[in-house]
Amino acid sequence: MTLPATEKVTGGSMKTIDKALFLLDFFLPDTPEWRLSDMARAAGMDKVTVMRILKSLAMKGIVEQHPETKKYRLGTAVLRLARIREACFPVVAVLHPVLEWLASETGETTHACLFSGSSMTTIAIAEPNRATRVFVDPAQPLPVYATASGLSYLAHARDAVVEETLARLTLRAYSGHTPVDMGTVRASLKVVQERGYAISSRTFEEDTTGIAAPVFDWHGNVLATIAAACVASRLTKEVEARIVAAVRQAAADATRAMGGDVTRTSGKRQQEMNA
Amino acid sequence: MTLPATEKVTGGSMKTIDKALFLLDFFLPDTPEWRLSDMARAAGMDKVTVMRILKSLAMKGIVEQHPETKKYRLGTAVLRLARIREACFPVVAVLHPVLEWLASETGETTHACLFSGSSMTTIAIAEPNRATRVFVDPAQPLPVYATASGLSYLAHARDAVVEETLARLTLRAYSGHTPVDMGTVRASLKVVQERGYAISSRTFEEDTTGIAAPVFDWHGNVLATIAAACVASRLTKEVEARIVAAVRQAAADATRAMGGDVTRTSGKRQQEMNA
Repeated sequence: MTLPATEKVTGGSMKTIDKALFLLDFFLPDTPEWRLSDMARAAGMDKVTVMRILKSLAMKGIVEQHPETKKYRLGTAVLRLARIREACFPVVAVLHPVLEWLASETGETTHACLFSGSSMTTIAIAEPNRATRVFVDPAQPLPVYATASGLSYLAHARDAVVEETLARLTLRAYSGHTPVDMGTVRASLKVVQERGYAISSRTFEEDTTGIAAPVFDWHGNVLATIAAACVASRLTKEVEARIVAAVRQAAADATRAMGGDVTRTSGKRQQEMNA
Repeated sequence: MTLPATEKVTGGSMKTIDKALFLLDFFLPDTPEWRLSDMARAAGMDKVTVMRILKSLAMKGIVEQHPETKKYRLGTAVLRLARIREACFPVVAVLHPVLEWLASETGETTHACLFSGSSMTTIAIAEPNRATRVFVDPAQPLPVYATASGLSYLAHARDAVVEETLARLTLRAYSGHTPVDMGTVRASLKVVQERGYAISSRTFEEDTTGIAAPVFDWHGNVLATIAAACVASRLTKEVEARIVAAVRQAAADATRAMGGDVTRTSGKRQQEMNA
């Protein structure tokens, strides 16, 4: 993750906790391990500060350091926290039956994602009862600009989140259809925002079309996304319309299950526009 | 969670990150939600500091505040971090086949736990193919002094962790067999440490005997525990011995799978004693 100069932490302007949380965000599926000096450089922070923060986090098991490579990575304490959160206020367990329903309704692989800085992290997957389907790798981060999940998240996120995220992006062509200029990405976000769902065809993987819709929490903020990863070559306009309807239905069900208000499914961003 | 006065944070003696991580530890399966004032009181910190810390954590989704009750709880960011950690450096996925083997070998429910301050959190469960078995509730915290998992963790933990944990404990009788004085707990720890595994019969639930052994990481530190939760009434001395052997085997396999050194299975604490 490289950040533009303006994102870097200069002097003591950021509070210590914010610095620690900022550093935690560097542990991503494609960069799960960091050498101290590389992280300090990427974060624009001095090495001593980064070392102190990582040592505090390591004391509690939030990160851990490999004894030989000396690299830092997330620690098992995050598994414990996730287990406590999920046991008391389930998200994955609530989304799972919705994904199962959507997989059987659409005949395609379905998944739910959370936002992770510049990509989406899959937290649950359901597979259809059908031989040909898209394989969704749970360890694979989904780039926000090249996937339906990412676009449907960003289109409904708060303006500050959108601008911060877009400023960080380095656009890269995953296929011949990936949007590689910021103008195209912004135009897509506008369309998705108006429609309330995203379709992203062959932009991340060849022969895969993603259809995704946002899940809102009790504040009306976008919390997660629900998507069907469809085999593109078998999507007729008619099938696509049927899947779009099912995805929107699933996202509304998930919003309700998470205590969100489905009458506000266009979310915070819509509210900001109306204000 | 009530802490002795000496544990409380006085003045600015603790660094801000340490304070934040200290507060995170208050979110436990039996106290998953906190009102700001209650948390400040329990932590011995002033309300303004606690509020600032929780607001920083909430900004990144590490905690979230319910819009109506105003209570704080762990946020979905911990699910994302856990997913990233597990996708890149699996623990649950590594322990699962070991638990499955142990369940089929012993005919009892098996589970793996991580340490959570004054109790153990279950992170994985495997069930035997048998009608009568112990039901392990994944949301139920296991008290360190009243379960084999807890005792086998503490017996192999560093002295500082043991003393800090014991100082915090309020012993409570879950059954007629729960150890309710510190002398008995310390004596049990000594036995477990010498043997390398723990047996805890009817101390937490009637008719359940836990048999547990520690899993070590690459540093030789105890990382997790593996246990069989057995129907106590069917345990003969012979069956018990067979299950003990299987649990120790499973813990050694798990240690190896986690990159630990099985020749040092008595761990850090043993090393401290030999030093």
